[in-house]
Amino acid sequence: MPASWPREYRAAADFVAAAYRPQHDEAGLETIEKAADRVLEETGIRFLDDPQTIDVLKQAGGVATGDVVRLDGAELRRIIRRHAPAKFLLRGRSSARDTPVGGGATPIFAPIYGAPNVVLDDGTRVAGSRQIYGELVAAAHAAPGLTNTGQMICVMEDVPEDRRPLEMLLAHLSRSDKPFMGNIASPAAAEAVIDLTAAAVGRPASAGECNLLHLINATPPLTYWPNPLKCLRAIALKGEASMVSSYMMMGATSPVTVAGALIQGYAEVLAGLALAQLWRPGAPVVMGILAYPFDMRRMLPDFGDPASQLVQFYAAELGRRLGVPVRGDGAITSAKIDDAQSGAEGSRVLSAAVASGASFILHASGWLEQGRTVSLAKFRRDAAALVEPGHGKPADLPTPLDHGIEMEIRGRLARS
Amino acid sequence: MPASWPREYRAAADFVAAAYRPQHDEAGLETIEKAADRVLEETGIRFLDDPQTIDVLKQAGGVATGDVVRLDGAELRRIIRRHAPAKFLLRGRSSARDTPVGGGATPIFAPIYGAPNVVLDDGTRVAGSRQIYGELVAAAHAAPGLTNTGQMICVMEDVPEDRRPLEMLLAHLSRSDKPFMGNIASPAAAEAVIDLTAAAVGRPASAGECNLLHLINATPPLTYWPNPLKCLRAIALKGEASMVSSYMMMGATSPVTVAGALIQGYAEVLAGLALAQLWRPGAPVVMGILAYPFDMRRMLPDFGDPASQLVQFYAAELGRRLGVPVRGDGAITSAKIDDAQSGAEGSRVLSAAVASGASFILHASGWLEQGRTVSLAKFRRDAAALVEPGHGKPADLPTPLDHGIEMEIRGRLARS
Repeated sequence: MPASWPREYRAAADFVAAAYRPQHDEAGLETIEKAADRVLEETGIRFLDDPQTIDVLKQAGGVATGDVVRLDGAELRRIIRRHAPAKFLLRGRSSARDTPVGGGATPIFAPIYGAPNVVLDDGTRVAGSRQIYGELVAAAHAAPGLTNTGQMICVMEDVPEDRRPLEMLLAHLSRSDKPFMGNIASPAAAEAVIDLTAAAVGRPASAGECNLLHLINATPPLTYWPNPLKCLRAIALKGEASMVSSYMMMGATSPVTVAGALIQGYAEVLAGLALAQLWRPGAPVVMGILAYPFDMRRMLPDFGDPASQLVQFYAAELGRRLGVPVRGDGAITSAKIDDAQSGAEGSRVLSAAVASGASFILHASGWLEQGRTVSLAKFRRDAAALVEPGHGKPADLPTPLDHGIEMEIRGRLARS
Repeated sequence: MPASWPREYRAAADFVAAAYRPQHDEAGLETIEKAADRVLEETGIRFLDDPQTIDVLKQAGGVATGDVVRLDGAELRRIIRRHAPAKFLLRGRSSARDTPVGGGATPIFAPIYGAPNVVLDDGTRVAGSRQIYGELVAAAHAAPGLTNTGQMICVMEDVPEDRRPLEMLLAHLSRSDKPFMGNIASPAAAEAVIDLTAAAVGRPASAGECNLLHLINATPPLTYWPNPLKCLRAIALKGEASMVSSYMMMGATSPVTVAGALIQGYAEVLAGLALAQLWRPGAPVVMGILAYPFDMRRMLPDFGDPASQLVQFYAAELGRRLGVPVRGDGAITSAKIDDAQSGAEGSRVLSAAVASGASFILHASGWLEQGRTVSLAKFRRDAAALVEPGHGKPADLPTPLDHGIEMEIRGRLARS
């Protein structure tokens, strides 16, 4: 573009052109990797209250000072490239629902994760509940565009916190036979859900197969909290999958620039992905680097901002160079109702995720209001948009859940 | 994807995976080219009421039977590849607004083209008028995301048809100094607008430069009407640019399948692009193959359908193989109001166009209701979404139009 162009053209147009062509920018990707290596070496990552993590990183050459470990990025990449699978199979109770992750397979779409509030079809805004949760899982099962029923689609506000993992599990297992995501309330909860799900799936897992993908978040900037670290370890040791993600608010929890956020996020996930391999070489992982500009006037992230799409494109390429499947976000938006803003922002984010080659797309349906709300109507609209009109038919009713396993889960809930 | 997957998965997922990766499908692109060659050879293209076109095609090896000419697709490709520029410069009255087309340059965004109706900010629906037209051009000038003010943003229903080309020209020249699109009401109108615009731009055109891009539509299936053929000739002889487009309704004016539509559309535009080169070797051209499924129940096209995005991705690759810049569509939708459907459909189409590498994106702002309406509010929303928030500033007021040229246009209007 001519340097003589007015500045306002360049801001708009450079973005658009750059956003969709990062695959030709190997030099830029190397710059990001080298800068992340410098962050890892000079600043390091803080691993809160988990001595086992610090010990294993020291054995891999890390230099610990208190809970901060300075790391060799090139070594972390070697560990990941040597051990992490480029693709794996995520299995459902019905083998017809098994979904490959990575390796050029079709992206997997899962619903919104973590909404405390629900907007019902009459417009009422209510707290999430056990009953609504079951209905959301059933809706995710029925939707042909969703190939994973996710986890914590809404928060079960009417269920005590310690009972929620098994209540959600029961919903996912009884209302669907599609694969779903694991629980990370605690390592014990993760393990219980893993074991019960394995029993429900029934088929023994061959190499390259697992049943649950878990959302393991770094806490930007450059920190991992204890529970994700302990869950990551428990999950890897069980041979189940972790989606190691850095979810940054640009300008608040990361640098405000696209390049700066990519550097920080890459440093963070490099540590988490390598940790999974240190706990168990070959542990299935997905990499997520996601960044949304933080609006300092409203003190909220801007989920429709195109800078995020540029981050997504580069993240996908960083994952390709690392040899691991990559995460994308779905129809996410800052809009409070499902209006034109919601439609436009959601489709932009989703289109970028799909076009980037992401393998697992979270928040693909239902997200409203910065993710604080799941809308039943938007859930259906988003899910319908994932299907070519006229082709998708609602999924068959799920295979009934084995009675013994259902009784086992209900028994544990009764005793808790 | 496993063949054992339920059919409803495959319909959704095959599309998504295939849609965004056609660059790896050189074999598929060759199949489309060969099938188009067969259509051109066995069925041919109908050129209505324009003997000069038929004569020049016969000189290039075409076999005419009445107004149908059977053509050698390989020869048409040779003509286009030998002569058509891979990129050219589209100039505005201000050189700071000049925009390169093709060759990896940032895509150009132009507003909706051809809306008879306007929705005002108070929700009133009115017929397009001269006054509204001027306001729309001014809005396109001010919007940093729009780098071309287009043509016939709305229809001037209060101006006699024969005066509209110069009234629109006056609006584009006086309310903006960005490049805009040419007029195709008739060859004489096209030429008058070309000459007056050249005078207003002032700078002599070097090789690879021109001032106006014209929308030249085939009339699917496999037909060109007389006026586009005569305009194409007049425009090429003046050294100005033509965007040769096939805009198909899948199932109505083209085969219903993606592959079938691509074959027909490619055959149509191959003829038009080669014609431009036969009239003037080196004439700047843009290629457009666009197809939207036609809903037989509503008797209207479905502008949000993902099949169209697959067509766009393959069209971009066919253009790349031909060595010419490619057109895309912007925020188009079947929605009647600017709601979630409008936002989602528009962003999907626009994202696919940008991701495909399209060089000129028409209908980038304002489109509602199958293109029959331009909404002022959506015009601003769409234009704003093309700019990274916080970066775009409204364009400076346009350089004043040369008084002599304004008087010349007003004089011609007074005499008409």
